[in-house]
Amino acid sequence: MAIPFGDDVAAYPAGDKELFILKTDMLVGKTDVPPGMSLWQAARKAVVMNISDFAAKGAKPKAMLVSLGLPDHLTKRNIIEIGAGLNAGAREYDTHILGGDTGEASDLIISLSVFGMAEKGKVMLRSGAKPRDLIAVSGCFGKTLSGLKILLDHLEASRKVREVLVDSVLMPKARLQEGLALGKTGAVSAGIDSSDGLAWSLHEISKASGVGIVVDKLPTAKEALEFAKANGLDPTELTLYGGEEYELVLTIKPKLWQKALEASGGKLLLIGKVTTEKEVVFEFRGKKRVVEPRGYEHFVGEKCLSRR
Amino acid sequence: MAIPFGDDVAAYPAGDKELFILKTDMLVGKTDVPPGMSLWQAARKAVVMNISDFAAKGAKPKAMLVSLGLPDHLTKRNIIEIGAGLNAGAREYDTHILGGDTGEASDLIISLSVFGMAEKGKVMLRSGAKPRDLIAVSGCFGKTLSGLKILLDHLEASRKVREVLVDSVLMPKARLQEGLALGKTGAVSAGIDSSDGLAWSLHEISKASGVGIVVDKLPTAKEALEFAKANGLDPTELTLYGGEEYELVLTIKPKLWQKALEASGGKLLLIGKVTTEKEVVFEFRGKKRVVEPRGYEHFVGEKCLSRR
Repeated sequence: MAIPFGDDVAAYPAGDKELFILKTDMLVGKTDVPPGMSLWQAARKAVVMNISDFAAKGAKPKAMLVSLGLPDHLTKRNIIEIGAGLNAGAREYDTHILGGDTGEASDLIISLSVFGMAEKGKVMLRSGAKPRDLIAVSGCFGKTLSGLKILLDHLEASRKVREVLVDSVLMPKARLQEGLALGKTGAVSAGIDSSDGLAWSLHEISKASGVGIVVDKLPTAKEALEFAKANGLDPTELTLYGGEEYELVLTIKPKLWQKALEASGGKLLLIGKVTTEKEVVFEFRGKKRVVEPRGYEHFVGEKCLSRR
Repeated sequence: MAIPFGDDVAAYPAGDKELFILKTDMLVGKTDVPPGMSLWQAARKAVVMNISDFAAKGAKPKAMLVSLGLPDHLTKRNIIEIGAGLNAGAREYDTHILGGDTGEASDLIISLSVFGMAEKGKVMLRSGAKPRDLIAVSGCFGKTLSGLKILLDHLEASRKVREVLVDSVLMPKARLQEGLALGKTGAVSAGIDSSDGLAWSLHEISKASGVGIVVDKLPTAKEALEFAKANGLDPTELTLYGGEEYELVLTIKPKLWQKALEASGGKLLLIGKVTTEKEVVFEFRGKKRVVEPRGYEHFVGEKCLSRR
C-alpha cells in the first residue's frame, strides 16, 4: 500500500513516480458548526478541513467533489451561501469543485472528497519519525478552544483578544503553502495536522512511528494565555487538548532543520524531540507530565443551525 | 472540461489517453433506507448507488473512500454491520475501500467517493444522443416502486412476486459488467442510469443532447404488471416514474445495435428511438402521451432506522 491505512489520506499509484491522493471528510452541522458561524463559513471550513490533511502530507489538492445533505428549513439563499463558501475555500487553496450531489438530511452535511497528486516517496506519513528528530509545529495553539469557549460558554475577553480567538474558529486556515514547501525539502520525517488537538496529533505520530515524544516548550498563543489568565483556565489544557487548529505537527531530521525552517517561511516552532521511550510527555523545569491521548471533543449544540 | 458539469460523474485528465473518473453520492437514512432494509443492505446500497454511475459511463471503478455519519443510538454491532455491507458491495464490483472517516450525525449518512479510470473519448456521456439512434435499457422496470409500495404502504402481492419486488429494493444491482462491455463497443452514443426513474433519465438525455425521444415499448417487469393488476395501479406509472432501479438507459447507434446487444449479454431491450422533436413521448397504437419530467421522490419515513 502506498500510504498505510489509517493515515490522513489514501493513495493509489499513478504511474511510476506519482500517487493519486484521496481524502474525504464530512462536516456535520450539529458537531462542526458552532453558534456564530455562518453557512458561508461552515462551507469554507469543510474545505479547510480536507485541505489541511493534504497540507500535512505535502500533497497538492487538484479538485474536489461535494455531497450536500440539506435540512429542509434551509432556504434557496442559504444554499447559495453554502455554494459561495465552498467556492471561496476552493479558490483560496487553488483548487476547484468538479461536481457533486445534493439531498435532504436532518443535519447540515457537507461531505467533500478531494483528490490530488504527490510524488512517490515524498508523502509526509505519520509513521516516519525517528528518535532524535525534532518536533515542530507551524504556529501557536490554544486559540480555537478559547474561541469556542467564547462562542459556546460566553466566556469573556478584551475586544482585540476576542476577535483573534473567535476568528480562529470561524475562519480557520490550512497550512497548504507551508506543507507543500516542506514536503519538497525531504526534511520532514513525519507529518499530521492538529485537527484533533496537539496532544492527539503527537500520540498519533508516536503510535504510527513506534517512538516517544518529549515536548519541552508549549506553543501557546499569547491571546490564549491572556484568555486563560482572565478566566482562570489552564493554558496548558488549552494548548494541548484543543482542536480544529489545522496547524502542522511535524518531525524534522535534525540536520535539515534550517532547510525546513526556511521552507516554512520562518513559521516553524521547535517544541521538543523524538525519543525511544514510547511515551508522550511534557518536560518543564525538570518535571515530567504525561501528555494524555485525548483530543478535541466536538461540542454538540442543540440545533445550532436553526438558531441563526 | 473532459466531462460536462452535471453529468453523472466528474473527470480529470490523467495523461494523454486516460481520465480519472470521480463520483460522490450520499445515502441518507431518512430518505434512502426504507423500513425492512438492514444496515448491511443500506451500506451495500450506498456502494451500488455510486457504482451504477460508473456503469452508465462505461468507466471502471478502482477504489473508494467512505465518510460515515452515525446517529448515537447505533451500537458497535450496528457499525460492524455497516462496514461489512460496504465491503460486500466493494467486493461485488471488484473494487475496494481505501479509507475514510466517521463522525456523529442525526441521520445515518453513508457518503462514498469512488474514483476510477476511463479512456478519453470512450465515456458514455448524457449529451451524445443523435436523432435516429435507438433507445435501449438493460432490464425491466417497475419493480422497485412496487417493492417500496409493499414495504411502505403494505400493499399485497403473492409470495413469489413479493419476493422479487422487495428484493429489487433491498438488494439493487448495478449493471457494471454490461456498462463496461458496452463502453468498449463504441455503439453507445449516450448513457445514464435510472436511479431517478426511467422518465427522468429519458428527459436528462433529451435535455443534455438536445434531442427528442419516442418510447414505443414500455419495459414493464412481469412482476410489476401482476402487482399493478392485483392492486388497481397503473403499470405505466410504475414503469416510468419509479426510481432506484439502477438499470442503464442508453442511446445506441443503429448500425451497431447487434454489437451492443451482444456486449450486454443479450440483456438490452429496445424501447424507442431518438427524434429531432425535443419532446419525450410514449407512442402506443398511434396515440401519443407526454412522458412527464418527474422522477422518483424519496419517501421520508419518521426514524426508519430506529424501527429495526
